[in-house]
Amino acid sequence: MTDAVVVGAGLAGSLASVYLARRGFHVRVLERREDPRTPGVRESGRSFNLGMSQRAAVALREIGLFDALAPATVPMRGRVVHLADGSLRFQAYGTEEDQVLHSVLRHDLNVALIDEAEKQGVEFRWGHKVTAVDREGPSVTTVSPQGMVEHGADLVIGADGAFSAVRAQLARGARTTLHQEFLEWGYKELLIPVGEDGRPRTELRALHVWPGDDGLIVAHPNVDGSLTATVFLPFEGPGGFAGLDTHSRVRDFFARVFPDTLTLVPDLVEQFLARDVASLVTIRTEPWHVPAGDRRGTVLLGDAAHAVYPFFGQGMNAAFEDCSVLDRCLAAHPHDLPGALAAFEKARRPHTDVLAELSKRNFVELRDKVRSPLFLARKKADLVLHRAFPRSWVPLYTLITHTTVPYGEALARARRQDRLLGSVTAALTGAALAGLARRSRRRRSARQVG
Amino acid sequence: MTDAVVVGAGLAGSLASVYLARRGFHVRVLERREDPRTPGVRESGRSFNLGMSQRAAVALREIGLFDALAPATVPMRGRVVHLADGSLRFQAYGTEEDQVLHSVLRHDLNVALIDEAEKQGVEFRWGHKVTAVDREGPSVTTVSPQGMVEHGADLVIGADGAFSAVRAQLARGARTTLHQEFLEWGYKELLIPVGEDGRPRTELRALHVWPGDDGLIVAHPNVDGSLTATVFLPFEGPGGFAGLDTHSRVRDFFARVFPDTLTLVPDLVEQFLARDVASLVTIRTEPWHVPAGDRRGTVLLGDAAHAVYPFFGQGMNAAFEDCSVLDRCLAAHPHDLPGALAAFEKARRPHTDVLAELSKRNFVELRDKVRSPLFLARKKADLVLHRAFPRSWVPLYTLITHTTVPYGEALARARRQDRLLGSVTAALTGAALAGLARRSRRRRSARQVG
Ligand SMILES: Cc1cc2nc3c(=O)[nH]c(=O)nc-3n(C[C@H](O)[C@H](O)[C@H](O)COP(=O)(O)OP(=O)(O)OC[C@H]3O[C@@H](n4cnc5c(N)ncnc54)[C@H](O)[C@@H]3O)c2cc1C
Ligand SMILES: Cc1cc2nc3c(=O)[nH]c(=O)nc-3n(C[C@H](O)[C@H](O)[C@H](O)COP(=O)(O)OP(=O)(O)OC[C@H]3O[C@@H](n4cnc5c(N)ncnc54)[C@H](O)[C@@H]3O)c2cc1C
Repeated sequence: MTDAVVVGAGLAGSLASVYLARRGFHVRVLERREDPRTPGVRESGRSFNLGMSQRAAVALREIGLFDALAPATVPMRGRVVHLADGSLRFQAYGTEEDQVLHSVLRHDLNVALIDEAEKQGVEFRWGHKVTAVDREGPSVTTVSPQGMVEHGADLVIGADGAFSAVRAQLARGARTTLHQEFLEWGYKELLIPVGEDGRPRTELRALHVWPGDDGLIVAHPNVDGSLTATVFLPFEGPGGFAGLDTHSRVRDFFARVFPDTLTLVPDLVEQFLARDVASLVTIRTEPWHVPAGDRRGTVLLGDAAHAVYPFFGQGMNAAFEDCSVLDRCLAAHPHDLPGALAAFEKARRPHTDVLAELSKRNFVELRDKVRSPLFLARKKADLVLHRAFPRSWVPLYTLITHTTVPYGEALARARRQDRLLGSVTAALTGAALAGLARRSRRRRSARQVG
Repeated sequence: MTDAVVVGAGLAGSLASVYLARRGFHVRVLERREDPRTPGVRESGRSFNLGMSQRAAVALREIGLFDALAPATVPMRGRVVHLADGSLRFQAYGTEEDQVLHSVLRHDLNVALIDEAEKQGVEFRWGHKVTAVDREGPSVTTVSPQGMVEHGADLVIGADGAFSAVRAQLARGARTTLHQEFLEWGYKELLIPVGEDGRPRTELRALHVWPGDDGLIVAHPNVDGSLTATVFLPFEGPGGFAGLDTHSRVRDFFARVFPDTLTLVPDLVEQFLARDVASLVTIRTEPWHVPAGDRRGTVLLGDAAHAVYPFFGQGMNAAFEDCSVLDRCLAAHPHDLPGALAAFEKARRPHTDVLAELSKRNFVELRDKVRSPLFLARKKADLVLHRAFPRSWVPLYTLITHTTVPYGEALARARRQDRLLGSVTAALTGAALAGLARRSRRRRSARQVG
């Protein structure tokens, strides 16, 4: 039996442990935090909700957990854009019935995965923080209230998030590529509670976006009718987190930039001032895997391998897809673990590199373009073409969110479409300009006549 | 009096300490290694030689050390290219008398700077390794055989090289950008000894280059008539360091790829097998400086702030220019240390970012293009134009190496020239093709006639 040690019982780690257990591995998960099922943790923790799209859904179906999760999720059929004048605009995600996102509490999803893993025989050690990794073993050392323990294994998986200790340990004295960038914007969460009548205060079955140069809000629905909003703002400056430090400054800012939020969140100012600001990081690194001899090895996955900005809502989706791809690579190389890890990195890294770039780009798009008429026109043309040619014309957002086409191929395809769309738009604009010119000629001649 | 602590007594740290002392600061330098002036260190250490160009020369002139160093340097007036067929080609650096590089042993340069610093009252603590930095103090903690000591200061300078402990400490819990990349090629050094007749075995007053896809050698002259060659090869593969592990493999490889080196270095195989392979890293990071209150702060410079591949021979030159720019910023903000550090980073970082890119590009150029006829033609056109218009047309290499035009401006200017040169080359190529067509038409009609 192959021994696996998974570091981190977050979303990637707990799902990976399920896949490995199903494959017959003996799996131990080491997690720094306490068991999230401990009474009181759900209420006190910094749990937020996530948009689950096609990639995560496919992985959850593979392990047979998707349907069981349905009661814990809210389907989202499109985007509600909140404009600065208080008006709303609805953008449907796509044309098909299954083009929906599912909003789920990170906490609930995590607990479901941990329960499933335990059913499959996975052993969890809570309160165990990994402090060292021996890449040659491989083995990891944990520190817990019970003391220091070394855990040897055939396979070590580093699923310990964006600030991965496993990644840092593997990099010691190695020629590791690391690109780490923080966004100059951070975020805080706000709860949009249910209304006094017990009903949602706004459309529940949608993702809500407040775009803007000065700030950006995204909100996902919860099963209880509330929504969780994430407010993204610059760290610095008077309209940034640093400057918004008094009751009146916060109130004035939201009244000016996001007027309807003050009605949606009656205690907005109190919530805002009470919360800590969190930062956003992009991590690209290489290599993800390190063989140990010809039968063992260590590999990173999830945010430990590729943290991305959350503006495409793909971090967890990509992490789940990692688990599914790794599982397939293990199946394809049953007696060659290092070969499986190499195949996994080769198959996967180019695509998550693309995702990192797309997630950066989408920050700009969400801030600016969702409101720009040209952007909306292009987006509309994109959707019109998609409706006319549902199979051969698929917008990038749809490819990323509602399919499992690898990210890199999705981008390549969208680029080809974009070039065509550019010609189409240019042609349309040309026609419009010609029309404009005709009209103005007519008007001029009319004036000359009159 | 302002207290400064400089971490690292390498090239950047020792020069920075001289500038600070001249400015009236009280300076303490903390260095992990032992005093390089200790008898025996020069002979045993991994000291190699460096090409000193205009930027380093200007800084050394500012502190009045350039002329005193002359006996320790060898001027290089151009490049000798060693081709695979054993033939040599000379490329002069430029047109002016002062367009020379100076080859100097890192060790000798370092000792000269340390001597000068001590003359100016700088205190050096050898065998003191910095293990922690308190950015709020600022202060640094050293570990030495005498125990642990905390050193507080108004100004802390991290000049502790590419794997800077100061940089890592400043990044803890901060939103630090870090780009770290290793080249897939490493290097070993070889000594080309003086000939048996006591004379240099090859042209001494030049930089020597052996270009190639399979490997690359660069050699600088030493004052004793020997040269130090740096052999760059891929880490992996049969023709890489990993594969070149036996006497016969090394001999066969050099005989095939760099035939004349076996004559220049009689004990090449023994030297090659005895040396460790070293790696090459590019580091870009941000921020370089962290203020502490409104009167103190910490700043990085030299390789700690911007390690670059050595293919433009600018790492130390850039480090020296840093020291000079920092000195000017301190002069411009005499009562505002954080302001001076901010001005330094703002003035300097964009240019060293450009240098990092240029140094990557030059790796490709040295490997391939030095031999390509098109490259040589362009280079020749570049030099011809430079000779005709010495002030208004200056090739990129010349701008980087023989002037102190900031790197970013040098690149912008070279790009403008390159566009022109492209048209010129295109025109020339067009003319050549037209000539070719004419000739072939003539030949064809001749045939038809005959
Ligand atoms: C604001 C925001 C919104 C987001 N929205 C979406 C979205 O809508 N859709 C989406 O798909 N993704 C979204 N994401 C991304 C998603 O949250 C992450 O990609 C996902 O959580 C990554 O899972 P992970 O298991 O790799 O890492 P994590 O969830 O960070 O889990 C890592 C685990 O490792 C543990 N750990 C860390 N260090 C150690 C150690 N030394 N020893 C032992 N254990 C350790 C941690 O305690 C944690 O439990 C969002 C992210 C943010 C920040
Ligand atoms: C193969 C090669 C060829 C090169 N050729 C050229 C060339 O031709 N021209 C050129 O301009 N540049 C060249 N360079 C680049 C040049 O060597 C570097 O840019 C230069 O040495 C940087 O100086 P520095 O003082 O910033 O760092 P370093 O020279 O690395 O000095 C750092 C110092 O800090 C000390 N230190 C490190 N950590 C600690 C700690 N924790 N506590 C205390 N002290 C510490 C180290 O012991 C060292 O003395 C070359 C580099 C290489 C690798």
